[in-house]
Amino acid sequence: VLSPRERVGQRSETVRRANLSAIVRELHLLGPQSRSELGRRTGLTRSAIRGLIGDLVSGGLVEERPSAPAGTPGRPSSLVCPRADQAVVVGLEVNVDSLALATVGLGGTIHRLERVDRPRAHVTLDAIVSDLVDLGGPTVGRLRRDGTLVGVGVAVAGIVRRDDGVVRHAPNLGWRDVPLGGRLAASLGLDAPVDVANEADLGGLAEHRRGAAVGVDDVVYVSGEVGVGGNVIMAGQPLVGAAGYAAEIGHMSVRPDGGVCGCGSTGCWETEIGERAMLARAGLPVDGGRDAVARLMIEAVAGEPQARAALEHVATWLGTGAASLVNIFNPRLVVLGGIFERIHPLVGSTIDAALRQRALPPSRDQVRVVPGRLGVDAPILGAAELAFEPLLADPAARLRGLHAVPASA
Amino acid sequence: VLSPRERVGQRSETVRRANLSAIVRELHLLGPQSRSELGRRTGLTRSAIRGLIGDLVSGGLVEERPSAPAGTPGRPSSLVCPRADQAVVVGLEVNVDSLALATVGLGGTIHRLERVDRPRAHVTLDAIVSDLVDLGGPTVGRLRRDGTLVGVGVAVAGIVRRDDGVVRHAPNLGWRDVPLGGRLAASLGLDAPVDVANEADLGGLAEHRRGAAVGVDDVVYVSGEVGVGGNVIMAGQPLVGAAGYAAEIGHMSVRPDGGVCGCGSTGCWETEIGERAMLARAGLPVDGGRDAVARLMIEAVAGEPQARAALEHVATWLGTGAASLVNIFNPRLVVLGGIFERIHPLVGSTIDAALRQRALPPSRDQVRVVPGRLGVDAPILGAAELAFEPLLADPAARLRGLHAVPASA
Repeated sequence: VLSPRERVGQRSETVRRANLSAIVRELHLLGPQSRSELGRRTGLTRSAIRGLIGDLVSGGLVEERPSAPAGTPGRPSSLVCPRADQAVVVGLEVNVDSLALATVGLGGTIHRLERVDRPRAHVTLDAIVSDLVDLGGPTVGRLRRDGTLVGVGVAVAGIVRRDDGVVRHAPNLGWRDVPLGGRLAASLGLDAPVDVANEADLGGLAEHRRGAAVGVDDVVYVSGEVGVGGNVIMAGQPLVGAAGYAAEIGHMSVRPDGGVCGCGSTGCWETEIGERAMLARAGLPVDGGRDAVARLMIEAVAGEPQARAALEHVATWLGTGAASLVNIFNPRLVVLGGIFERIHPLVGSTIDAALRQRALPPSRDQVRVVPGRLGVDAPILGAAELAFEPLLADPAARLRGLHAVPASA
Repeated sequence: VLSPRERVGQRSETVRRANLSAIVRELHLLGPQSRSELGRRTGLTRSAIRGLIGDLVSGGLVEERPSAPAGTPGRPSSLVCPRADQAVVVGLEVNVDSLALATVGLGGTIHRLERVDRPRAHVTLDAIVSDLVDLGGPTVGRLRRDGTLVGVGVAVAGIVRRDDGVVRHAPNLGWRDVPLGGRLAASLGLDAPVDVANEADLGGLAEHRRGAAVGVDDVVYVSGEVGVGGNVIMAGQPLVGAAGYAAEIGHMSVRPDGGVCGCGSTGCWETEIGERAMLARAGLPVDGGRDAVARLMIEAVAGEPQARAALEHVATWLGTGAASLVNIFNPRLVVLGGIFERIHPLVGSTIDAALRQRALPPSRDQVRVVPGRLGVDAPILGAAELAFEPLLADPAARLRGLHAVPASA
């Protein structure tokens, strides 16, 4: 996110950096494209594109490949391709039930994606960091030796201070003010900070860049897990707030005289639509986790009345809260993630009906509610995207660092 | 607001335009300052500043004045000053109870501010446009003849499509899909469109630029009138949404089984904290308008129990909804406008208590709730700011247009 400070007066010498950033970002988000497409998208002249691509090729971040097989008639043209092997990030995830690792290359190529279960219980920072180092340490070490590591991003089921990666509050992990970013960076032997963010924020980021909301500038993402979270993209930029705590939409009061929430308040949206509330209504163990949710889905598909009623209840309240968010944000798209992505095929019409009943007509007529496309992997893919941000914002810095690395063909 | 498209690759020839914009914006928002202050704020070099200021002086938008009286010892330095007489906007307001006119010069100098009552009733577009032309037509004509008119902005108590100034829905005026912007531009004899926006959006903009939230990047503004509206500033930029309908925070469902709202839904925030709800609880006529609100305030100050209870009820629900917004936006400041600005001195502690009870601690600890500073004039001053936007975004266009105008000293 550009801060207002960064938008003001520009010296000419900063222009090259901004232009390199624009090109690398386009290639990362949209994939291989011709020079002329890049020119159209960035507004840069042909000669500017030529020079900048040259720098990026020498620096090993991109390569040019023929766009048509040899032997095809006509003048050969070429595609500018991001080099997924030469700029790689590691995403990590600390979820209530699992840990995950992803390695992703420039352009969004997923090299590896691995998830391991963990018991749903409070846990110390030491234990989590140790598990994360077991899971990701060897990969991080190898990428560093190869000179291809761009960064490490972490998704966590808690409220995170973006500046320093401190987890301010994570009730399901039993954490308050836990310095996850700093400790993990030290344990992985990294000089640079590890970027940490809330899992729902990152899930929304991933759906915006790689999933159901690609190309849509104004998006509300609502993710259902044990906690209900979300992210909001406005004019193409994620909502961050003063310290990165924004988009805690699960703690919107929808029924102030309602049930007690994990956050200490009452009647938060989460108390009506969170995983525990849904399982309780279905008569299933509230902490049954994935197995219980799987059983609920099977029962609901089979038409079992209590399971259907539980889903209908959640759907009505999901649409009610979504209407508030549509009135507040005027988005083009509401993307449902986590358990809401899974129940959407069964109760999408109930969600829509509640939304239509409560949202203001001008905003209501512009919005669609759709399920996410990335499933449980949205947060870890978002963690990888987070780790790419410094490179996308300033590829010039990396080009300087890479001058010593031979650009292999 | 810069769209993501505008942030990508920049040709060198667009740099001058961006730099002129940065300088004029700083001068408009912060007032007269030295060249070195301008350099520090914009990041521009001394020689760049010198050239750009020269252009702006020739174009009549700024002038340089000695910063100390003649005869003061030391080398004389000068202040760069926006010329409030040479670049003037007209703000107009269509409120439930009144119409207003403001003329404001570059730098925020208010030349004139006038408000006339209108009966609280449905009204045709023809009648309103005729009244607005009576109120503002002569001023607009004079400024055009002088070559100093920058633009016209309009605040209206309704939901507005920003693109074309169509009022999509204004229940208190009885309007649906009314082309206010186009009709007003035609009736004022203007070639350029008139910019129209929601009054609460503009009230928030004005508090951010000229009132209680100056210098604060993340702000939620909550305005209480007959309708409850607001605006949200995130990272310095107003929340707009897909079509300009965002920040309809008065239609957040806070009590879905609650009272019927003017919008057709039930239990919107407005049904608990809007002017009508407040007056009804106090036993006063719900459409008594300003007189009834004035009476309520007098009774509450005197300690009359029903009046106090009405204010306490509103304050509790105001804090409850504000907590949801704090969780959603993580702002530094919640600014209360309209009737909430007036009741804050009496019930600020109740508002704070409800907020503290429901907002998540990390976000809660960063936010303060304060009354606005601009009173009933916030929307009209915001309309003036809206009319300045095209000039602030591209002063170069105006410099071209002004080349024929002699720059008087």
